[in-house]
Amino acid sequence: MLCVGKRLVRLKGFQKLTSVDKALQMFLSQVPPKKIGIEIVPLTSALNRVLAENITAEHDLPNFNRTAVDGYAVKAEETHGASQFKPKKFLITEKHAVETKQAKQVWTGNPIPKGADAVVMLEYTKRMGDEVEVWTQVVPGENISKKGEDISKGEVAVKARTRLKPQHIGLLAALGFSEIKVFEKPKIAILATGNELVEVGSSIKEGQVFEVNRLVLSALCRELNAEPIDLGIANDNVNEIRDKLEFGAKVADAIITTGGTSVGAFDFVPEVVDKLGKPGVIVHGVAMRPAMPTALAIAKEKPILVLSGNPVAAIIGFEVFARPLICRLLGLEKEEHRPVVKAKMTKKVATALGRKTFVRVHVFQRNREFFAEPISTRGSGVISTMTKANGYAVASENRQGLEKGEEVLVYLFDDVDLVG
Amino acid sequence: MLCVGKRLVRLKGFQKLTSVDKALQMFLSQVPPKKIGIEIVPLTSALNRVLAENITAEHDLPNFNRTAVDGYAVKAEETHGASQFKPKKFLITEKHAVETKQAKQVWTGNPIPKGADAVVMLEYTKRMGDEVEVWTQVVPGENISKKGEDISKGEVAVKARTRLKPQHIGLLAALGFSEIKVFEKPKIAILATGNELVEVGSSIKEGQVFEVNRLVLSALCRELNAEPIDLGIANDNVNEIRDKLEFGAKVADAIITTGGTSVGAFDFVPEVVDKLGKPGVIVHGVAMRPAMPTALAIAKEKPILVLSGNPVAAIIGFEVFARPLICRLLGLEKEEHRPVVKAKMTKKVATALGRKTFVRVHVFQRNREFFAEPISTRGSGVISTMTKANGYAVASENRQGLEKGEEVLVYLFDDVDLVG
Repeated sequence: MLCVGKRLVRLKGFQKLTSVDKALQMFLSQVPPKKIGIEIVPLTSALNRVLAENITAEHDLPNFNRTAVDGYAVKAEETHGASQFKPKKFLITEKHAVETKQAKQVWTGNPIPKGADAVVMLEYTKRMGDEVEVWTQVVPGENISKKGEDISKGEVAVKARTRLKPQHIGLLAALGFSEIKVFEKPKIAILATGNELVEVGSSIKEGQVFEVNRLVLSALCRELNAEPIDLGIANDNVNEIRDKLEFGAKVADAIITTGGTSVGAFDFVPEVVDKLGKPGVIVHGVAMRPAMPTALAIAKEKPILVLSGNPVAAIIGFEVFARPLICRLLGLEKEEHRPVVKAKMTKKVATALGRKTFVRVHVFQRNREFFAEPISTRGSGVISTMTKANGYAVASENRQGLEKGEEVLVYLFDDVDLVG
Repeated sequence: MLCVGKRLVRLKGFQKLTSVDKALQMFLSQVPPKKIGIEIVPLTSALNRVLAENITAEHDLPNFNRTAVDGYAVKAEETHGASQFKPKKFLITEKHAVETKQAKQVWTGNPIPKGADAVVMLEYTKRMGDEVEVWTQVVPGENISKKGEDISKGEVAVKARTRLKPQHIGLLAALGFSEIKVFEKPKIAILATGNELVEVGSSIKEGQVFEVNRLVLSALCRELNAEPIDLGIANDNVNEIRDKLEFGAKVADAIITTGGTSVGAFDFVPEVVDKLGKPGVIVHGVAMRPAMPTALAIAKEKPILVLSGNPVAAIIGFEVFARPLICRLLGLEKEEHRPVVKAKMTKKVATALGRKTFVRVHVFQRNREFFAEPISTRGSGVISTMTKANGYAVASENRQGLEKGEEVLVYLFDDVDLVG
């Protein structure tokens, strides 16, 4: 009877679903602030790390006046009146200085030779042996990248909390930095629960399934450059789950579990999480599809995401709840979204009123237009729908579907094909 | 005189520029076909690798009939005539089999108990102690994921030449694969040339600049999951450059050089490359901006990309020429593009007729609309323009600019901000 009673309590929990936005806000607002550790890495290992300090230029960039174009460096005043009909002639010098009526050939990036104060573009010149004809007049400073033009000394070149892409690494290198401070990668412990689960690579019996979620969630963490920690598979056993969660809370910055979060007889992960520490479960049951039986919790000062055991729901749960959390733990200034594209629905899709629905679509590009073809799904568990799709569109709670021809925003998790 | 003569020959080379499309086609069509090496990796290390074999399902997925929804498994015929006004009652069983007038509560993914052939969704039921009221009729098979529904035995689940994303790893795991064959990462040797270059971390004198390109190009290779090999910095010295290129051709699958590719007195990289082996330089001088002084070559059976020393031009040169080459060396089925978004230009930008121009823009999203703000640039060398931008738009050769309000396709190399 006690068992039945408990089950009823849990069933009750789902009679009131929380909206996605509210759930996320309730959860993130209670995640304890944490000082993120800092490490120093060489610039060669800085790709996709998050910068932990403002990088201020210690010198001007460029640190000398240089030409912004290919052409001839001259004294600007000596070009006065030059035109295609009235070209001016200059003697070409090979020295690093320009004297009266001299020009020096320069290539983009070269220092401006002494005595010169402008560059005439190659297109407006004609070389004739040791001389060059100039067909246009230039003003002082023309076609010159001034010292400090790119970044001036003391200026913030790259802000703290920026994800370092190749171009940031280039700018930091140009300023002479060979190593920088970055935030430590957050550690995300991942636990799968379920008596039916078998480790990939083992043999399988009817009723058993290979455990997929730890591999997928680890890969999703790695895409964000967070560090997954594998807590393995736990049986549907309170003690086993609790022990693994306690270990996870010790070694990681956040925990993600999968399975045992619905309201079935063996679904007691939210209960175990709730007993782990205060405040415990903050939300259980979200008005969304898939991933409705998601719970968001905090215990032992660690955020815990209790995701569905269904692989598709686990992925969507990760995208919606783990992604913003991990972006914060990475030290990023704001959530990093997947690339978004606006695409026209090729077909109508029905969705349930009151549920934010994540519709898997295949986006393709044809004649500069983007189209989103919904992937037909029956159970949300069909994982091949995720490999057929390359993104998802969102139908809000107040919608009963997405119309054919409607323009939707699609969040892309794979490449877009160019068709036709 | 010989020296001047040589210089003139090289200058001549630029009088005829090749279009971007033509240059790429001429180059790629001559790249020697190469059997890419294969290695076996555990699925845990397979993220972003390229699959080297078709993966065929060795069993059905799911490998048993399971419920696609939360609800009650029943014998469909016993629900005949059930409605909200005329509910049918079933006795709830805890066994793994359903007998006459029995129902078993099941949760998404659970096996269908023996004797049951349909599932009534939770929404259409009401539990009353040990009984459940069913308010709707179901047909045999309703709400059941059939054995093999996701992938059936013998079906190709993931095709060779696919880049493995988290969802592919999930599907491979679901099919029980713990290790797979992937293509070896291509090795890309990177050489910077220029007397003015100083290694990052050293001290610098006027007229010298920190070498930026090897770091940036290595990062761009890593983004594609190719393996950069650092050939260091070479002075503008024929023998030094040749020796390093010969070494690069031995250890790598392709070589990228930067600098010394214009037509100045010290710009002899294309000449050295041309003498390295047949066919040598295929294109030198491309009708584009930036990156005009790009050369594309093949020698010692290795593709060689001779990029500008200007960091912005080197990045654009990489995107346009190295990216499709590396995608091919990775074993990918087709070129992997950066995410593309359609955005409205916020300002007019002038471009040169006859030059395909890569306009750096900052894309932002406001009220579900995307806008592209051009980054004002003077010299193309200003690398901070690349960190201010998050993508580039392309103005074709027959255009003299991009108009304000015009919709352009932007290739994104960084996150898009949501504004307002």
